[in-house]
Amino acid sequence: MTKNQRGKLTIFALGGLDEIGKNMYVIQYGNDIVVIDSGLMFPEEDMLGIDIVIPDITYLIENQDKVRGIILTHGHEDHIGGLPYILRQLNVPIYATKLTMGLVEHKLREAHILNDTKRIIINNHSEVTLGSLKATFFQTNHSIPDSVGVCIETPEGAVVHTGDFKFDMTPVNEQTADIHKMAEIGKKGVLCLLSDSTNAERPGFTGSERTVGESLKEVFRKAKQRIIVATFASNIHRIQQVVDACHMYGRKLAVVGRSMVNVVNIASELGYLNIPSDMLIDPDDINRLPAHKVAVISTGSQGESMSALTRMANASHRKVEILPGDTVIIAATPIPGNEKLIGRTVDQLFRIGADVVYSNIAHVHVSGHGAEEDLKLMLNLIKPKYFIPIHGEYRMLRAHAQLAESVGVRPENIFICDNGDTVEFMGGKARYGPKVPTGKVLIDGLGVGDVGNIVLRDRKLLSQDGILVVVVTLSKANGAILSGPDIISRGFVYVRESEKLLEEANQVVGLTMEKCMKDQVSEWASLKTSIRDSLGKFLFERTRRRPMILPIIMEV
Amino acid sequence: MTKNQRGKLTIFALGGLDEIGKNMYVIQYGNDIVVIDSGLMFPEEDMLGIDIVIPDITYLIENQDKVRGIILTHGHEDHIGGLPYILRQLNVPIYATKLTMGLVEHKLREAHILNDTKRIIINNHSEVTLGSLKATFFQTNHSIPDSVGVCIETPEGAVVHTGDFKFDMTPVNEQTADIHKMAEIGKKGVLCLLSDSTNAERPGFTGSERTVGESLKEVFRKAKQRIIVATFASNIHRIQQVVDACHMYGRKLAVVGRSMVNVVNIASELGYLNIPSDMLIDPDDINRLPAHKVAVISTGSQGESMSALTRMANASHRKVEILPGDTVIIAATPIPGNEKLIGRTVDQLFRIGADVVYSNIAHVHVSGHGAEEDLKLMLNLIKPKYFIPIHGEYRMLRAHAQLAESVGVRPENIFICDNGDTVEFMGGKARYGPKVPTGKVLIDGLGVGDVGNIVLRDRKLLSQDGILVVVVTLSKANGAILSGPDIISRGFVYVRESEKLLEEANQVVGLTMEKCMKDQVSEWASLKTSIRDSLGKFLFERTRRRPMILPIIMEV
Repeated sequence: MTKNQRGKLTIFALGGLDEIGKNMYVIQYGNDIVVIDSGLMFPEEDMLGIDIVIPDITYLIENQDKVRGIILTHGHEDHIGGLPYILRQLNVPIYATKLTMGLVEHKLREAHILNDTKRIIINNHSEVTLGSLKATFFQTNHSIPDSVGVCIETPEGAVVHTGDFKFDMTPVNEQTADIHKMAEIGKKGVLCLLSDSTNAERPGFTGSERTVGESLKEVFRKAKQRIIVATFASNIHRIQQVVDACHMYGRKLAVVGRSMVNVVNIASELGYLNIPSDMLIDPDDINRLPAHKVAVISTGSQGESMSALTRMANASHRKVEILPGDTVIIAATPIPGNEKLIGRTVDQLFRIGADVVYSNIAHVHVSGHGAEEDLKLMLNLIKPKYFIPIHGEYRMLRAHAQLAESVGVRPENIFICDNGDTVEFMGGKARYGPKVPTGKVLIDGLGVGDVGNIVLRDRKLLSQDGILVVVVTLSKANGAILSGPDIISRGFVYVRESEKLLEEANQVVGLTMEKCMKDQVSEWASLKTSIRDSLGKFLFERTRRRPMILPIIMEV
Repeated sequence: MTKNQRGKLTIFALGGLDEIGKNMYVIQYGNDIVVIDSGLMFPEEDMLGIDIVIPDITYLIENQDKVRGIILTHGHEDHIGGLPYILRQLNVPIYATKLTMGLVEHKLREAHILNDTKRIIINNHSEVTLGSLKATFFQTNHSIPDSVGVCIETPEGAVVHTGDFKFDMTPVNEQTADIHKMAEIGKKGVLCLLSDSTNAERPGFTGSERTVGESLKEVFRKAKQRIIVATFASNIHRIQQVVDACHMYGRKLAVVGRSMVNVVNIASELGYLNIPSDMLIDPDDINRLPAHKVAVISTGSQGESMSALTRMANASHRKVEILPGDTVIIAATPIPGNEKLIGRTVDQLFRIGADVVYSNIAHVHVSGHGAEEDLKLMLNLIKPKYFIPIHGEYRMLRAHAQLAESVGVRPENIFICDNGDTVEFMGGKARYGPKVPTGKVLIDGLGVGDVGNIVLRDRKLLSQDGILVVVVTLSKANGAILSGPDIISRGFVYVRESEKLLEEANQVVGLTMEKCMKDQVSEWASLKTSIRDSLGKFLFERTRRRPMILPIIMEV
């Protein structure tokens, strides 16, 4: 076929590069586009008031007719969380394994778009034809079951996307990663590998989830009273291990926390969690049973202020009260930025008299992402000609690139990309193509994209030194001051402690206005500017603070 | 003497318990009060706009006449940073070692209270009489030289305060901790020990600072171009090791960053830093020398946005530009909460093409605080009858208490206190006494204590969803609306993208006011409340946001 028909292969990310979150990767051959994952990101600390962040999908909307589908590698928020927003603008079929689809369907139902969305369940053996592209899948190990890697066969060659993975040789669900299929794929020859870089800076292999189960059982063995385990709701393997420990030591289990209840229900229904029929109890019944017969599994392992565990720690949880002698296991490590929150929760629990087991002092967590040796093993299995590290901040991508080099990928065949950078493949050659538009779409409440830099800058200003509103009413007739200037402040200083300061501020405004009148300043714009300047100057001299100043002039 | 004259011994903290920072401990016997340390704390993330936090010293001011002096254990901000504020309210003599005093004097000079403050330099051999109390000192190892522990001899017995410490058997300055003096003190018998709990959760011994020097030299050996080392300005031992590495590999050294320059000057003057006379160069001259002949030592190891290293990384530093091939060493570990900032800096540096050496991938930092074994060694040397763990959050204090038990301190003789909890000693018996007032004094710009919970709550509100100001002018005569309602929003939504929303909001206010008029609502308070309620309700339904609503009613 001619070059034109043959077209070219383009690979790029709309999210997930140089950041942790909102993963969305695009593989395009000619008129066929396949999207892999559709995640959300939690806001950075400078995104004040923002709830979540999703990728800008302008490119996909403009090429709506070419998008053959969205393939989901697993059910974590940073891979599926963007769907409810993105499917509203881009109605395309989604492909996912059973558990992943179960979690997605729950989201789409809540968003009232479940029935408008075409959903295809895939598994390890599926073959999906997407225009000129064919997708096959291989099972991986990760901190959520039913995770897969994807192999997209294109006329230019095979492209492999690992999803999030590690190699767990003794997985909890007995389903080891499908190493044989990876080997097969590698043997057939792979043009380009996209692989998870999260732990590329960590030496060695990532430990097996099963080792956490051992520590859990050890704690269960010693616990005299109730046991409360907090972990990530989506970590179904870990939940299973808590269930197993309960079974081994004859404890009933109560499930607490909205997302935990939700995941436990879905995973049980779909057969990913095996809980003895008589084990689950209602949180209301906890106190009806002897303390040594009860365990609780709950959300809040990150110390989130509204989470179940945090409420228990602050004795403000409606159903579960933690008593002296209870054992609390926080089976997680802090996500960077959450150390203080978790620390406070641990402190609170110790104050109550609970025995707290957490990552500083016990082995109660392993990562779901492969470390250096896992990543090298993947590279050696897939043997790609070209390599694009994905899913990580720049230093992680870079570290992963070095690993690829160390196992023999040629340096010039490694592309460290930013979101929007495209890599084009034609006739087995690769090069950077034109950039594709990308960005962060901020979601605040119901507003999608209606908060941008100006609003965030204002929120930042307001959060630092508050605001002073200066109101004055002028006469339309002669511009005389009819009322005011009045100054109202919020978030600046205690009014009662600073009456004098505010009085003086008032005088400063008065004088400024007089001057403006004398100088015949007629446009309000410049009058407002003078007020802002003189008052700002005065307040900074007196307080070294720069509150937002909002002059309001009424005319009657 | 009679019990009355004999009085009792009271020990408590005004800061430093269940927190990291603003250390201030008080030892009172009868009419004699000795204060140990006077630190500041950096604001928690919920203290929006706050610069620093200091302890509430109401108790000391009320007992001004009894305060015999403030003893400073070492020169870190969390031990001396509160002095400029506290000495203004409490003019008492301060006792410190040479280096600590040097750093303090710099602060007091900047605060224009140097000459009003009586300053006494102490050393390892000093004996200070403070009323009925006598203070002696013993040298310790910490991440700043000239750190001491304090032994206060009281009629009730000896009280030992370790300050911050670890045991470094191969210290950089050849000054090992004065183990013999500690042993002597322990042998004489100690009533109560107050000891540093920062690393009570960490197993083993804390490593020697010298091990960092080895890694530094290794990096220096390999570096082809310029080397930039970022570390804590106060870590003079580490600065000395950078100097030594420069000497060994024939590099000149430029000092960058305000606090780094300041500490290097003071420490050199006082003889705590030995820098070959011809080694230091002006940052302006960096580019005049071949790249392999230059090193830079700088602030910014925590990724602080305005710090020297961060500016270099963003190519916005006035004097130092980082070039591809340069080596950047971040000789520090992230203080909890700073992980993301540091990560971003590392990413930026890698992007420039620098070779970055940081704690994730190399041994370039050791803690200045003793781990479990250091703490047990101290406990065994001092052999106290009573023990009060200090300097740490609750879980650390608790872990330290367990260590004390493990080496034989009787559980009932261990007091885990909060700031303000007092422990009273009489006739060798100890018990909790009445609480002493404590608190956080927030400093924002020049304002000391003029920002409190209400202001912080407002700043929090403003930071999340911004503010809407609703202004309307009424007629004094008949209460008719002369102008408005006008709505001005900041930090809420893009106005141009939400014109319709704001128009409707305007109508909501209009209707509310009409209704109030009809209902003859005359007090502005209730009029404002109705506006706040109806508008708040409307906005939440439409946007799921709760901006602050500030109704302003003018009357002419």
